[in-house]
Amino acid sequence: MPQLTVKQLQDFLQTDFPQSSVIVEAVGDQCATIRQVIDGSHLRPGGTVSGPVLMAVADIAMYVALLSEIGIVPLAVTTNLSINFLRKPAADRDIVAQCHLLKVGKTLAVGEVSLFSEGVSDLLAHVVCTYAIPPRV
Amino acid sequence: MPQLTVKQLQDFLQTDFPQSSVIVEAVGDQCATIRQVIDGSHLRPGGTVSGPVLMAVADIAMYVALLSEIGIVPLAVTTNLSINFLRKPAADRDIVAQCHLLKVGKTLAVGEVSLFSEGVSDLLAHVVCTYAIPPRV
Amino acid sequence: MPQLTVKQLQDFLQTDFPQSSVIVEAVGDQCATIRQVIDGSHLRPGGTVSGPVLMAVADIAMYVALLSEIGIVPLAVTTNLSINFLRKPAADRDIVAQCHLLKVGKTLAVGEVSLFSEGVSDLLAHVVCTYAIPPRV
Amino acid sequence: MPQLTVKQLQDFLQTDFPQSSVIVEAVGDQCATIRQVIDGSHLRPGGTVSGPVLMAVADIAMYVALLSEIGIVPLAVTTNLSINFLRKPAADRDIVAQCHLLKVGKTLAVGEVSLFSEGVSDLLAHVVCTYAIPPRV
Repeated sequence: MPQLTVKQLQDFLQTDFPQSSVIVEAVGDQCATIRQVIDGSHLRPGGTVSGPVLMAVADIAMYVALLSEIGIVPLAVTTNLSINFLRKPAADRDIVAQCHLLKVGKTLAVGEVSLFSEGVSDLLAHVVCTYAIPPRV
Repeated sequence: MPQLTVKQLQDFLQTDFPQSSVIVEAVGDQCATIRQVIDGSHLRPGGTVSGPVLMAVADIAMYVALLSEIGIVPLAVTTNLSINFLRKPAADRDIVAQCHLLKVGKTLAVGEVSLFSEGVSDLLAHVVCTYAIPPRV
Repeated sequence: MPQLTVKQLQDFLQTDFPQSSVIVEAVGDQCATIRQVIDGSHLRPGGTVSGPVLMAVADIAMYVALLSEIGIVPLAVTTNLSINFLRKPAADRDIVAQCHLLKVGKTLAVGEVSLFSEGVSDLLAHVVCTYAIPPRV
Repeated sequence: MPQLTVKQLQDFLQTDFPQSSVIVEAVGDQCATIRQVIDGSHLRPGGTVSGPVLMAVADIAMYVALLSEIGIVPLAVTTNLSINFLRKPAADRDIVAQCHLLKVGKTLAVGEVSLFSEGVSDLLAHVVCTYAIPPRV
């Protein structure tokens, strides 16, 4: 299966998930990097990016990494997501998510996602995510 | 420590989390039930409630259950959230979250949250959540 | 599929997992209760049951609950196990594990397990466990 | 706090956890590598290393990595351990665990552990582990 390109993945997200504003920055070698531009709608009281935003970005990073490996399989669904929140995100920096696939099996894929505030090397949060892959005809 | 009432918790959420629209339905005995009214903004393609909405509702259910036990401690923060997605939510039903605290320690609290589509008994998703409780003066 | 009985499950464990000494106490209604008799080999310094023993007992409780529903499927394997350690087990009491299946699908089953020291109502640890079920011919 | 050496950690394990036979291979830079020599007592039917052995090795790898950073704090305890089982371990190879600490805070430390069969590059299992660190006097 030929890997999908950044442009193909970005086009797919814009068509199928028009409400998402993530930017696909890089894919390849079982990895993907995406960016979520942060605006006021992503913040919570205290001036920080809300936890659900981090979870959503991690989930999309895993989805992008997985599709880049197996092709466009829109019915792949998250079955488990486990997140550890480690540090408080900056309110004025984008969120960058780097996913690394740990295994892509026939029916399950597992990956880990590291979340950062752009330009800051300390990890904000760490996610492990499992997707179920539907049988392919 | 006297437990907080439904009204006190609802008032706190409306003041401190004005962007959240959850309704506190019941608290007590280390439990809390909340409801998220679902509208188009909560859906994703395929006509179902998006995963991040479920994660956000579970996180708030745990927060409400915890504050009902320890009082208003706004600095309590989620350190870990692990969710298993079990069934596809209905697009036209509210989400109901029932949290049960498993332990409230001095520095950590752990709870589980069961998520349902209103009026449907099958579990949509199951969450285990840990909060860190800041030292109280 | 007719449910298996306590005796059938106990016989299966004794034949296929002779190194395990757990006792199947009850099965039915998507639940199972098992007991691990505790001796010195299960303890760690400090006079408490070691964490790996708790994890092993939880995993077997989930296996027993699952097999009681789907029949003897020896190739069902754990894919994810997440445990929260809540309280220190007594060194001189057996460990009792109660599993409740949250979903039994075609390829995945998810359950939660509550672990207790026998005769003590406070929860020692809480586990969520996923098994992959191989295709049945 | 000066980091502990491999020898200091090995001596501590041998004194305080005499039932464990893990070998500390390397520590430093928020990382630790340990090895579990595998014999028949670690196997389960089917000729593979049992899941609880993998969980135990991951937990010790995290403990060694943490102590190498904060010094000998015997009362540090695991609060959460989440493992994804990815591939079947070889029965005739030692288990090697590499832990990388993601955060060492005042009261909590989080790390991830990658588990391998010695000499095989495919990941067997991936673990995320949280330890609670007691207040230091």
